[in-house]
Amino acid sequence: MPVYTAPTDDVMFLLNDVFRIERHNNVAGFGDATPDVVEAILVEAGKLCAEVLTPLNRIGDIQGCTRHEDGRVTTPEGFKGAYDQLVAGGWVGLSAPTEFGGQGLPGTLTVIINEFMASANLAFSMYSGLVQGAVAAILTHGSDEQKRKFLPKMIEGVWAGTMNLTEPQCGTDLGLLRTKAVKQADGSYKISGTKIFISGGEQDLTSNIIHLVLARIEGAPEGTRGISLFIVPKVMVNDDGTLGERNGVVCGSIEHKMGIHGNSTCVMNYDNATGYLIGQENRGLNAMFVMMNEARLGVGVQGLALSEVAYQNAVIYAKERLQGRALTGPKFPDKPADPIIVHPDVRRTLLSIRAFNEAARALTIQTALYGDLAQRSQDAKEKQHADDMMGLLTPVVKGVLTDTGFANAVNAQQMFGGHGYISETGVEQFVRDARIPMIYEGANGIQALDLVGRKLPKDGGRAVMAFFAEVQGFVNAHKADETMKPIVQPLDASLGHLQAATMWFMNNAMKNPDNAGAGASDYMHMFGLVALGLMWGRIALAVKEKLAEGTASAGASLDAQALKNKLIVARFFGEKMLPETAAQLKRIEAGAGSVMEMAEGGF
Amino acid sequence: MPVYTAPTDDVMFLLNDVFRIERHNNVAGFGDATPDVVEAILVEAGKLCAEVLTPLNRIGDIQGCTRHEDGRVTTPEGFKGAYDQLVAGGWVGLSAPTEFGGQGLPGTLTVIINEFMASANLAFSMYSGLVQGAVAAILTHGSDEQKRKFLPKMIEGVWAGTMNLTEPQCGTDLGLLRTKAVKQADGSYKISGTKIFISGGEQDLTSNIIHLVLARIEGAPEGTRGISLFIVPKVMVNDDGTLGERNGVVCGSIEHKMGIHGNSTCVMNYDNATGYLIGQENRGLNAMFVMMNEARLGVGVQGLALSEVAYQNAVIYAKERLQGRALTGPKFPDKPADPIIVHPDVRRTLLSIRAFNEAARALTIQTALYGDLAQRSQDAKEKQHADDMMGLLTPVVKGVLTDTGFANAVNAQQMFGGHGYISETGVEQFVRDARIPMIYEGANGIQALDLVGRKLPKDGGRAVMAFFAEVQGFVNAHKADETMKPIVQPLDASLGHLQAATMWFMNNAMKNPDNAGAGASDYMHMFGLVALGLMWGRIALAVKEKLAEGTASAGASLDAQALKNKLIVARFFGEKMLPETAAQLKRIEAGAGSVMEMAEGGF
Repeated sequence: MPVYTAPTDDVMFLLNDVFRIERHNNVAGFGDATPDVVEAILVEAGKLCAEVLTPLNRIGDIQGCTRHEDGRVTTPEGFKGAYDQLVAGGWVGLSAPTEFGGQGLPGTLTVIINEFMASANLAFSMYSGLVQGAVAAILTHGSDEQKRKFLPKMIEGVWAGTMNLTEPQCGTDLGLLRTKAVKQADGSYKISGTKIFISGGEQDLTSNIIHLVLARIEGAPEGTRGISLFIVPKVMVNDDGTLGERNGVVCGSIEHKMGIHGNSTCVMNYDNATGYLIGQENRGLNAMFVMMNEARLGVGVQGLALSEVAYQNAVIYAKERLQGRALTGPKFPDKPADPIIVHPDVRRTLLSIRAFNEAARALTIQTALYGDLAQRSQDAKEKQHADDMMGLLTPVVKGVLTDTGFANAVNAQQMFGGHGYISETGVEQFVRDARIPMIYEGANGIQALDLVGRKLPKDGGRAVMAFFAEVQGFVNAHKADETMKPIVQPLDASLGHLQAATMWFMNNAMKNPDNAGAGASDYMHMFGLVALGLMWGRIALAVKEKLAEGTASAGASLDAQALKNKLIVARFFGEKMLPETAAQLKRIEAGAGSVMEMAEGGF
Repeated sequence: MPVYTAPTDDVMFLLNDVFRIERHNNVAGFGDATPDVVEAILVEAGKLCAEVLTPLNRIGDIQGCTRHEDGRVTTPEGFKGAYDQLVAGGWVGLSAPTEFGGQGLPGTLTVIINEFMASANLAFSMYSGLVQGAVAAILTHGSDEQKRKFLPKMIEGVWAGTMNLTEPQCGTDLGLLRTKAVKQADGSYKISGTKIFISGGEQDLTSNIIHLVLARIEGAPEGTRGISLFIVPKVMVNDDGTLGERNGVVCGSIEHKMGIHGNSTCVMNYDNATGYLIGQENRGLNAMFVMMNEARLGVGVQGLALSEVAYQNAVIYAKERLQGRALTGPKFPDKPADPIIVHPDVRRTLLSIRAFNEAARALTIQTALYGDLAQRSQDAKEKQHADDMMGLLTPVVKGVLTDTGFANAVNAQQMFGGHGYISETGVEQFVRDARIPMIYEGANGIQALDLVGRKLPKDGGRAVMAFFAEVQGFVNAHKADETMKPIVQPLDASLGHLQAATMWFMNNAMKNPDNAGAGASDYMHMFGLVALGLMWGRIALAVKEKLAEGTASAGASLDAQALKNKLIVARFFGEKMLPETAAQLKRIEAGAGSVMEMAEGGF
């Protein structure tokens, strides 16, 4: 049975020593997030994850959800009790505005805790995770009345939220959507249509579910310019906040799927359901984008989360499993064989996961901090820069962290040999669960196109130029430093590759956009490697500074050896993972020729 | 529901035009394998796979196998009927010696048909696939009496065969095995112990199962030098060939696992079961190695097989699914959207699978041909060369084809978006099924070590030198040719990387074997890319020659366009897949330093 320990020490190190979040104490919510408070919160969250959510993970996988004939959905045994604990602890509204009952803490904290929860139980964590996106959309685009009516209960956690975009004929291409909205005399709308793949569309955890639904108002233009966003409560909410009668929305079926069995994936049938327009008519995509950025960062974190828990369990197994002898001679001659962690290929595998995890955690925290600053900073310049970086990094975090997170879950499973293929061991569930983040919230090919086609050229390339300048500045400042060289030198080379690829797109994608499309996925992963490399650079710098201060004062609970280990992992990242950018550049520069030449019929 | 069409045209092209198997007509069995006969056999096998085995694939996944209280195991509905068809068609003994009732055709044909069957239904194909390995072991090491007693029924297919190596404490490291054999007065042995992960250890398809079991004879030396191989029939076989009473072996439980649900993975309990020694005492590993080489090639083929069927279904979906518009403007303006196959990233994904599949098929055929020549050739030099190459290529085929085959199944699934995650679509089963070939028959890390630690230095590097000379010779002969350049030039570069890596091992692994261990996996994949690149070179050459002869005479059923498409895919392989070897070399040359430095406790 898999176990999980939340990486609170590493997080504290990242927050305090790498990102020095006390710099942002003038930003709303950050002043309250003192190191003591943050540590207490993280430890508590870690406990909940280890003790309550982790043991439910396999139960959820085995039992799955059950839809009853009347459309009700039962979640796995124990989920309701755990959800109640989540609500009682105020976890859902940790970063939500105090005005609506939240605790107003930085969103970054929620992102961190979402990692813990997804490690412990991805399927479970999605129920509350999706509320956060719905809250964000209502906060940003909802009317005052809508906020007052829906937000407090959602932020408390007693009502859930969902996102309803996909229809059978319409996934990535939302312009094709058909769900219909008809305006009523009272200003509300009647919504009719079928939505599919709705995570948590129906469940037995909360007394109400606030569905956010994309639909086309009668007579609206075709394509994406005719889409509006609606609030459709499962149960109508009276003016006094009490629950009224059931709305015309019902779960038609739930999907059998590869993983996340504990989360109900619903077909939702809307039949003249009452809905309330959020924001302006035909501007639904705009309103939805608020949810999407939050959701994409959250999904990226899920990739990291599965990679982390898979790593932890693979390490335990690699230390216990005795098989064969070290290539350099027996390390434990008194035992019948050495533990497999002595083998270079096992270590290489584990280190490649570890080298990703630590840097990916830093990158998600960095991106979440940008998200906080973009929303809360009072400094216009800081706000704009943060917004630029958040937009630029979001597709990278989503695409790279989920692709790599899945690959890492697979590699961790490999450490178990045949035992990893057996359900009882629990690691094969990580693989199945880790597969979905690569797909939902915009399949990763779409993330790559978003990065290359929209985020790079946006505002004349302002964001990407700032990113390059940041990496180059870091490299220049530290490249002569012996401690930093093992990560900074390869980072310098990889930055060069990334800049060359960017230049190549500028010169070749204008005349043929397929040149950008054919290289987009490689570019996204290359960008990810450089961003992760920068994180390793920043981690190494913080380690160096901490070590110079002397072990006694080395903050968090990381001792000198733990800090020094980070330098080893940083070097591993530089030596073993960054070289990939050279190959990626070569593939990008080969262009779209061989990709587009074959006629469709030839496939 | 997934479909499958056996790639018979491509196989005929490979056999007749690329490998020109008529050159081997003087080798036993090859003379009978005329193009007409081979085509008839392949078409028939393809029909069986498409019409009988494919429809049972999802049924097998859903139903799985059932163990009853008395130890009996029921396979999924329809499996027994399909197995009877397999037996009736003589498929099991296609390449087995005529002396024992086989058809004596080249083993290469069986390897090809095993690909078809594994594409159609991996779980089902394993029942008969394992018989072939058991037959090989008895043929090579069994006594005349053992051959007479067991082979005819196994070759007919009415008795199955299994391999029993793994024990709970002992997987890769067979030296740890504990199953005990006690010699009896009549020369037989009593076998006691527990074996796990026994594929098809119990089933209801055949009237008997011939277990090949590794065990330690009382008093034998410790470690791998005290292991012997035994025949342990499930049901005792009387001297007249009729079945006697049940032997002391029973299925204790079956595993719940990630995939291949239709194949029973059994815990087998041996309790004073009667066994017959095969070959010499304490030389069991030697006898087992015969099965292992066959089995490893067979497992590599499974990786290709899943990649192929996943590709076929992804292509169908990509041509049907309408979503978005081509980057260069609508390709099907009359439809609400373009099929997703217009998108460069979709094409890139599909082409990377296709570019692997065609070359991997060529490589498995090439390796199987070496296997045939190693066994059957009358020319000592040819025989030795074939044996060298078979040994060298086997770990590459096993490791690279299963790693890449799995990755391709994942990438094919990605083409389906959210629909790919839903069980009904059927592609997620391909992913789950494709995961096990990376593990069984020696996890891929072990394949890499086998390649680097044993196959490279064997006989003073004779095999690898011959391989390098072959690739270099091909490159030199064709590098000036315009048609061949797109594949030959990058192949030349990649061969250089592979040779540099080999040299680096020679210079650095002697003083520190961890340097070989840390780079072994990269080296194996690099070797695979060069081997696949050579296959593309040979395919391109055959295409060029066929096109020069004029379409009218272009053999197989591939028209001129189909042949020209292969040149596009070859170019894609050169431009997009071979560049990886530069990164692999860099990682290898970074050595074991950062891999071995961290203390075990730091993980």
